[in-house]
Amino acid sequence: MFRKISLILLMLTFAISEADNGYNLWLQYVQIEDVNVRQAYIEKLNQIVYLNDNETINVALDELNIGLSGMLGLSDVSALVNSEKINNESGLMLATYSTLSDGLKREFKSDFNKINEEGFIIKSVIINNVSQIIITGKTEVAVLYGTFRFLKLLQSHQSLNNLNIIDAPKIQKRVLNHWDNLDRTVERGYSGFSIWDWHRLPDYLDFRYTDYARANASVGINGTVLNNVNANANILTPQYLEKVAALAKVFRPYGIKVYLTARFSAPMEIGGLKTSDPLDEDVISWWKQKVKEVYQFIPDFGGFLVKANSEGQPGPQNYGRNHVDGANMLAEALNPFGGIVMWRAFVYSEHDTTDRAKQAYSEFVPFDGKFKDNVLIQVKNGAIDFQPREPFHPMFGAMPKTPLMMEFQITQEYLGQSTHTVFLPKFYEEVLKTDTYREGKGSTVAKVIDGSLNNQKLTGIAGVSNVGTDINWTGNVMLQANWYGYGRLAWNPDLKAENIANEWIRMTFSNDIAVVKTIEDILLMSHEAVVNYMTPFGLHHIMATGHHYGPGPWVANLSRPEWNPVYYHKADANGIGFDRTEKGSGATDQYAKEVSKEFSNLNSCPEEYLLWFHHLSWEYKLKSGVTLWDGLALKYQEGVNQVKQMVDYWKSLEGKIDQQRFKEVEMLLNIQLKEAKWWRDACLLYFQQFSKKQLPQGVEKSTKSLEEFKNMTFPFAPGN
Amino acid sequence: MFRKISLILLMLTFAISEADNGYNLWLQYVQIEDVNVRQAYIEKLNQIVYLNDNETINVALDELNIGLSGMLGLSDVSALVNSEKINNESGLMLATYSTLSDGLKREFKSDFNKINEEGFIIKSVIINNVSQIIITGKTEVAVLYGTFRFLKLLQSHQSLNNLNIIDAPKIQKRVLNHWDNLDRTVERGYSGFSIWDWHRLPDYLDFRYTDYARANASVGINGTVLNNVNANANILTPQYLEKVAALAKVFRPYGIKVYLTARFSAPMEIGGLKTSDPLDEDVISWWKQKVKEVYQFIPDFGGFLVKANSEGQPGPQNYGRNHVDGANMLAEALNPFGGIVMWRAFVYSEHDTTDRAKQAYSEFVPFDGKFKDNVLIQVKNGAIDFQPREPFHPMFGAMPKTPLMMEFQITQEYLGQSTHTVFLPKFYEEVLKTDTYREGKGSTVAKVIDGSLNNQKLTGIAGVSNVGTDINWTGNVMLQANWYGYGRLAWNPDLKAENIANEWIRMTFSNDIAVVKTIEDILLMSHEAVVNYMTPFGLHHIMATGHHYGPGPWVANLSRPEWNPVYYHKADANGIGFDRTEKGSGATDQYAKEVSKEFSNLNSCPEEYLLWFHHLSWEYKLKSGVTLWDGLALKYQEGVNQVKQMVDYWKSLEGKIDQQRFKEVEMLLNIQLKEAKWWRDACLLYFQQFSKKQLPQGVEKSTKSLEEFKNMTFPFAPGN
Repeated sequence: MFRKISLILLMLTFAISEADNGYNLWLQYVQIEDVNVRQAYIEKLNQIVYLNDNETINVALDELNIGLSGMLGLSDVSALVNSEKINNESGLMLATYSTLSDGLKREFKSDFNKINEEGFIIKSVIINNVSQIIITGKTEVAVLYGTFRFLKLLQSHQSLNNLNIIDAPKIQKRVLNHWDNLDRTVERGYSGFSIWDWHRLPDYLDFRYTDYARANASVGINGTVLNNVNANANILTPQYLEKVAALAKVFRPYGIKVYLTARFSAPMEIGGLKTSDPLDEDVISWWKQKVKEVYQFIPDFGGFLVKANSEGQPGPQNYGRNHVDGANMLAEALNPFGGIVMWRAFVYSEHDTTDRAKQAYSEFVPFDGKFKDNVLIQVKNGAIDFQPREPFHPMFGAMPKTPLMMEFQITQEYLGQSTHTVFLPKFYEEVLKTDTYREGKGSTVAKVIDGSLNNQKLTGIAGVSNVGTDINWTGNVMLQANWYGYGRLAWNPDLKAENIANEWIRMTFSNDIAVVKTIEDILLMSHEAVVNYMTPFGLHHIMATGHHYGPGPWVANLSRPEWNPVYYHKADANGIGFDRTEKGSGATDQYAKEVSKEFSNLNSCPEEYLLWFHHLSWEYKLKSGVTLWDGLALKYQEGVNQVKQMVDYWKSLEGKIDQQRFKEVEMLLNIQLKEAKWWRDACLLYFQQFSKKQLPQGVEKSTKSLEEFKNMTFPFAPGN
Repeated sequence: MFRKISLILLMLTFAISEADNGYNLWLQYVQIEDVNVRQAYIEKLNQIVYLNDNETINVALDELNIGLSGMLGLSDVSALVNSEKINNESGLMLATYSTLSDGLKREFKSDFNKINEEGFIIKSVIINNVSQIIITGKTEVAVLYGTFRFLKLLQSHQSLNNLNIIDAPKIQKRVLNHWDNLDRTVERGYSGFSIWDWHRLPDYLDFRYTDYARANASVGINGTVLNNVNANANILTPQYLEKVAALAKVFRPYGIKVYLTARFSAPMEIGGLKTSDPLDEDVISWWKQKVKEVYQFIPDFGGFLVKANSEGQPGPQNYGRNHVDGANMLAEALNPFGGIVMWRAFVYSEHDTTDRAKQAYSEFVPFDGKFKDNVLIQVKNGAIDFQPREPFHPMFGAMPKTPLMMEFQITQEYLGQSTHTVFLPKFYEEVLKTDTYREGKGSTVAKVIDGSLNNQKLTGIAGVSNVGTDINWTGNVMLQANWYGYGRLAWNPDLKAENIANEWIRMTFSNDIAVVKTIEDILLMSHEAVVNYMTPFGLHHIMATGHHYGPGPWVANLSRPEWNPVYYHKADANGIGFDRTEKGSGATDQYAKEVSKEFSNLNSCPEEYLLWFHHLSWEYKLKSGVTLWDGLALKYQEGVNQVKQMVDYWKSLEGKIDQQRFKEVEMLLNIQLKEAKWWRDACLLYFQQFSKKQLPQGVEKSTKSLEEFKNMTFPFAPGN
């Protein structure tokens, strides 16, 4: 027996940790188990040379230390690092363009022509007969991005031979929007509470801030709006600006700029003025002073995000002014310092009886060309509000003289919150590759956003963050993929969701091909599944009130008509769906002719948008030949079946990944299955009142009554 | 260079992690660096035998697996475990009394006579000429406690030779009180938010729940009240009881019972009754039914904690009844199931003009002997409210026929919240060892609590938890010591704070004697420091309003007189302090004669309670010979100096403990220093208005004015 123990003693802790709590996200850097792979890497990395000495290069070196010591099992990589010239050992070199030798400058000239300030080059070269890997770019942050990309090669067990990677972001402002309140609650947050511990800032800098910056930089996110669009003016007081500055200092080496939301009524609330009229001289000068003060605290402050005259927020319309007046006033204050305004187009009014889906377009498109150069209009992916599936927002492509930013939601307000596994890059990809036809065929949403369609000088994209205080950041390790995937698509909106899934799994879980394939299958089917069990065929906005948790198609008693699900599904004895064709609200007219025709015509309208654009009888024949009622019921069932499949796939991973994450996701998928059935049963029982039809074969009957579903309450549901 | 790397590769990750986030608390189980120590342990542990098979023994084995694989560097200890008889290898054996061989039963007989159901024996014995270590007790949970104690021997590098440890808890109900709300905010919580993720319960069981149970069991805490004493009746609905049951199931193997707070008005709020009168038949039967229902969900439910007719909470007095009526009604409902009532004595009324410090005693002492057998009266350590220092509560010893539970506050509502390092066991010890003289000399508070003074059948102690969602649980790793230390004193109220500090440091940070000594010095001086810089000489309740963050001795405008700091310090031109002698409020009369005399007489009153019991002129001569004003100023300065010392001591640890915890505590101690100065300056400037005297030599002048201090606001301070 003693011999046995002695042997065990030698088997040191090589194995994957049994208790991986997910904190390390996709930057796991676990030791590579295959000795040959590890050894091949080690032989390539006899030294690490850096030619620049600044805080960004320092964090790149830190990351190499964490990553290489973890993956290669080295106790301390810093012993390999030096800032001198390359000696006769093969190794890695970090250098910006300006520090490269003249020879290398010449060698890399054409590559440098292909990249912007944030783009990087990773290239194998021979110097003095020794092979070297060079990570370079025009700026230090480009080198940092290259370093993360280099580490990813090792994370996914790729060869380091003959490297020739040239990559640059296609969109300039790649930001996260945190809907975080100053009391640390998070609007639509389902991963605990805000990671910003305002009370202990600026003197206590949680290590989490650095890890947050690392995660963002690893995918190229270069900006963060710290606070909720439903803003509190206190954030602009010196007491808070000092705290914001402390965060900005942590993020700066990682190339991440800090932005804040600006409450339009701040001049009154914290400035003591009697008005916030954007044309009032005192207001204008108050904002100029305030912006100057902000830049004294944060010299590289990014700018303001503004939600104005939307869902009760104050704005220029309170004074008879318009969005241009409001946005441009702030833009002028920010302009001397290089700051920008991100002005949200998410507006709709309870006093406007036109289809809510039409209002943002109607209000903003006439302003095309009227905004200052440092204003971006931030537009949600669809015209309603982050529904499981929406057709693209008609504003995309419709304002050629105005830079439009995409606003995606990473947090899952309407998508099962943090319990449901939904791989959103699949949906983001669907939106981005859709053709607006605004400048003829090929005018994809991606080209609107990356500015190439109309040659925009300023481009941006925003993702409403799903990050919170939960140890694994997103409440569900599977949803880390959405943060990752958003970042990747923000860098390059033409990437394929499938590839994003593949690389995320390899970095996060395992390079074991069985594991990769299984999780990939789960991720790639997950978005269609949630659409099926929540809102198939273009249904939308049929969730419960307030917390938006679970189904509520019956809700009809809210003060604003367009807050009620019945406004959207319009189910009655005759059928279901919102007629947005010319015969109905005419929302289809807001699209380019080709698109409008496609959506308006029942023969060409994609079935996934059917009830978004059409009110159809329960007897309407779907392409499959079944009636709409039967098809709807079968789709709900299909969603449930897909989740069952996801559960089964996941179970096959037991023992192939660490126990903690395995069990956590298993519990969550079981909740998702339970809730998919809840959605199916509640919605079908409700709609059945109108269709008066039996469920088709293959659709399971509910074990609860409609009344029971209606009576369910969730008094302290999160994110409300 | 290549040779160098190959060498490094062999230096596997033995070293202490550079990024210890503190999640593992005092259950770090880091690998023992000294090969000899490790080898000596390994030689003792050739097998692990267990003679019982149940869930508690399973978690004991799990803990051995985690602990031994970590400390001894074994990849998997479970290979050593078997449930068969001992073979000819030296090893460890887990067994309850009933499973021991007759020979061992005889050998251990006198030891078993010394312990109760939760007590354990760890003993080296020789069986078949081979040495074995036996961990035994009358119950499985006793064996679990013994297992944790055994692991602690290794954690603190003690010998495993000739073990003979017999230990048993002196108090029966050792509970934590969580002031956690159902929306996950925590009243007086400074470590993030509630770890109970109610929304995702019962289907999602956060791994944190298990780790919470492990931590509690490791110190012998055997109960937890999950929700706030300012209660929400929803917790008693089936929707929540199902969630509570899921937590109870996680905690059960660890010997931890779940308790809930009962909102006295629940019969009306969730029961549909028109009254909550405890003598009303419907109310009585509603509670009986409700309790029955609770036990259907949680068969080993512990009972109710009740805050009634206190600070706006409903209670029996709303119906002209008294605390006995209320407590006994609930006690009768719980009695058939073995549940208890913990009824809080923290009551004071804005309609009562007598000294707040006297009210609880006046209200409760006349009820002595009138409560049912399964009622405990839960009394805060002092008569006001968890002040930095208070004399012991006069109720202790004054109700010989009633079991009194101690209520300590672990969370630091009035002690710098989670930024200030204050080692509370030092203060708990001070309270526990104080002599009440109620049954003559030697009638310590500890003896009241452990029941030995008046031969109580039921005993208990409660600690208001400082646990939250912060990764390190307590917002500050140093404050983990208060959770740990509370548990240790709950097990044995006669333990010495010094020893508790020593063992906690060894388990948490290091066995390096320099580290142990340095941190011990910091901890042991910390409570006196905070008293000095906040409330020296018996001052109390002079903090800011609402959030209780920072000083506010000037506050005089609150609706209830006894909420105002000026009510407590009574500073004016003539002097400062609250006269509680016979000439004043007469609160000293509530103590036993000996104590009353000691506190009333200026010659015998300990100076640390001086202004608690006496109003004295600014010119009053202290024992040191200086005037009260000079002494007060010097004490404030001394507090600041002590924190400076703590900062310096801590700095000496750089490189001796992991970087993350080092830096975190360094930042926190710097905040503490800043805030100690804030307290000193704000209080002295304020009191100086009355004393009209200069600061004595050695006391630093404030850099801010009193007005500036008064104008400070903290709009989103936590825990409010």
